[in-house]
Amino acid sequence: MKKFLNSVDTVLTESLDGFVAAHADILVLGEDHKFIRRRALKPGKVALISGGGSGHEPLHGGFVGHGMLDAACPGQVFTSPTPDQMLAAVEAVDTGAGCLFIVKNYEGDVMNFDMAAEMADGVLKVVTNDDVAVENSSYTTGRRGVAGTLVVEKIVGAAAEQGMALPELKALGDRVNAATRSMGVALTSGTVPAAGKPTFEIGDGEMEFGIGIHGEPGRRRDSLKSANAIAEEVCAAIAGDLGNRAKGPALLLVNGFGGTPSMELYLMYNSARKIFERQGVTVARSLVGSYVTSLDMAGCSITLTMLDDEATALWDAPVHTAALRWGL
Amino acid sequence: MKKFLNSVDTVLTESLDGFVAAHADILVLGEDHKFIRRRALKPGKVALISGGGSGHEPLHGGFVGHGMLDAACPGQVFTSPTPDQMLAAVEAVDTGAGCLFIVKNYEGDVMNFDMAAEMADGVLKVVTNDDVAVENSSYTTGRRGVAGTLVVEKIVGAAAEQGMALPELKALGDRVNAATRSMGVALTSGTVPAAGKPTFEIGDGEMEFGIGIHGEPGRRRDSLKSANAIAEEVCAAIAGDLGNRAKGPALLLVNGFGGTPSMELYLMYNSARKIFERQGVTVARSLVGSYVTSLDMAGCSITLTMLDDEATALWDAPVHTAALRWGL
Repeated sequence: MKKFLNSVDTVLTESLDGFVAAHADILVLGEDHKFIRRRALKPGKVALISGGGSGHEPLHGGFVGHGMLDAACPGQVFTSPTPDQMLAAVEAVDTGAGCLFIVKNYEGDVMNFDMAAEMADGVLKVVTNDDVAVENSSYTTGRRGVAGTLVVEKIVGAAAEQGMALPELKALGDRVNAATRSMGVALTSGTVPAAGKPTFEIGDGEMEFGIGIHGEPGRRRDSLKSANAIAEEVCAAIAGDLGNRAKGPALLLVNGFGGTPSMELYLMYNSARKIFERQGVTVARSLVGSYVTSLDMAGCSITLTMLDDEATALWDAPVHTAALRWGL
Repeated sequence: MKKFLNSVDTVLTESLDGFVAAHADILVLGEDHKFIRRRALKPGKVALISGGGSGHEPLHGGFVGHGMLDAACPGQVFTSPTPDQMLAAVEAVDTGAGCLFIVKNYEGDVMNFDMAAEMADGVLKVVTNDDVAVENSSYTTGRRGVAGTLVVEKIVGAAAEQGMALPELKALGDRVNAATRSMGVALTSGTVPAAGKPTFEIGDGEMEFGIGIHGEPGRRRDSLKSANAIAEEVCAAIAGDLGNRAKGPALLLVNGFGGTPSMELYLMYNSARKIFERQGVTVARSLVGSYVTSLDMAGCSITLTMLDDEATALWDAPVHTAALRWGL
C-alpha cells in the first residue's frame, strides 16, 4: 500500500482536520468528527444532511456550504456513519424548518439514516439509486446510489436555499434521482487503508464494467477497451434504461474515481458527449472531475441527468462549497 | 498501460476537444489545437499567455478565463509548445496593451517562448522556478518551475484584470515567484501514453524525494515514510530556502500529481500546515487539489507563497476558469 498516511487508525480524522482547516471560512467540524457543517446557517431554511462511508471524497463533505448541504456525516472508510452522528448533525443544523436526508442506496446507510429519522422530528429522506449497472449488489437491495447523488444534492440544495418547503424538496429530490442514470468502469482497484491491499484483483489488460464505488463487482470483467468502446457501452446502458426520456437537454457528468487524471476524464467526456448527442440528447450542462471517488481507484463513471427548466435553473444557482463553487 | 484512450496519437487533441466543449461558455479552441483562449477578451487589458508540455492538467488550459490567463498553448505530452503556437495565441488575444508570457523554467519552453517574444512586439516574460529540490535537472538550467506557477498566474492574472500595465505585471510576477517555494514527492511513476510504460522504476516500498513534474529525479530515493515525516522534510526544505522570509502570512498549496485522491492530500495539508505554523508561518490562504499534475503519477507537492496585502487581495479577486473559480 502506497499512501500518504501516519497510521491507518487516524487517516480519516487527520484528513477531516485538514479539510476543515483548509475551508474554515465556510465549514465547522462537529465534536468527535461526527459531522461537517456549514458555518453560516440560514434560519427558516430546511436543513439538508447527507453522509456515508468515507473514501468517496469530495462527496459528501466537499458539498457542504451555501446552496448545497448543511451537514455531512462521514463514516469510517466504506462504512456507514452511525445514527448518533446523524442525530448530532440534525441537532446542529435544524433551524426549525425540518431536515431532508439524502442517502445513497446501501443497506447500512439506509438503515442508519432511518433509525436517526425515527428519533428526530420532521425528517424526510431521498434515497439515490442511479447506478444502472446491476439490480442488486454486495451491499444493496436494488440499485446502488453513485455519482448522481451529487446532482441531487446540488439541485435540491439550491431549492432549499431559495426557501422551498420540506415535502416539495423531497419530491424534487425523488424526481431528480428518477431523471438520473450512471454507470462506472474500473481499470484498477482502490486500497482501503485498514486492509492494506487492493479490494479486488484485476489483470494488467483487464477492466471491470459496471464497477461499484466500493469496488463491488459490476456486469462483467473484460479486456481493456478503447475509450470510445467503453463510452459506447456505458452510454448505451444509460440511454437504454432511460428509454424515451433520453431526448433533449441533459447534464453530463464524467466522474473520476480518484486515480484517473483529468486529461483522461475529458477524453472520455468527449466520447460520451458525441454518443449522447448523436442519439438526440442535448448536453446543456457539463461537469468533469473526480467528485464521487473510490479512494485511489483508476476509472470513471458517466452520469446523465435529464433536465427541465426548473432543474437547469437550480443547477445554475450559486453554490459555495469546497468542491463545487460558482456564482459566489 | 491502463488509460482511457483511443490512440496514443490523438490523446491530446481528443482531450482538448472535450475540455473546450465542456467549458464552451468561457473558452475557445484555436485552429489546429494551437491554443485555448478566453472567449470574452477585454480590450486594453494586458494579455497573459502561458503554456508548456501537456500532461500537467489542469495547468495551463484550466487557468484560462476571467482573472487569470488569456491563452494557454498546449505542447505534446511533456514537450514544449512551438513558437508558432505562441505567436498564434498572441495574435488571438493581444488587444493592444501587450503580452506577458508566464513560462516554467525548462530549457525547451524558455527557448521557444523567447523565440516567439522576439517575433512579436511588446512581449515581456516571467519565468517561474519555485522547485527547491534540485539546482539543475534533466531539462533545466537552474531550478524547475512547478506548482507555484499556478500562484503566479492567479495573482498576476488578477492584477491584469484590474488594469495593471505590462512592466508592473512583469515585476509583480517576478516578485510572487521569488516569494514562492515548492517541493514534491512521488510514490509511483506516471506513464506517458506514447511511451506505454512508466517513466521510471520505483519499488513497492519506495518513494522519490524532490521529484520533478516530468518524473525527473529529485534529491534521493528512500523507503516510504509517514505523512508527517514526508511533510517535515519537504517543509524544512522550503522554509530553509526561504530563510528569514518564512514568517507571517502565506498561501499553502498542497498539490496532487494526478493519481492521489483528495483524502490523502488533505491529510498532507494537515501535516504541513501544523509544521509551518509551528515555525511562525500563518497559513492565511489554502488550496488543496490536483492542479499541476504529472499524468497519473501518485504523489504530491507542497508550495508556500509568502503573502503581502497586495498579493492576498489579488489571490482573493474573482476568477472564472475551468479549474479555479470564485467570486463569479
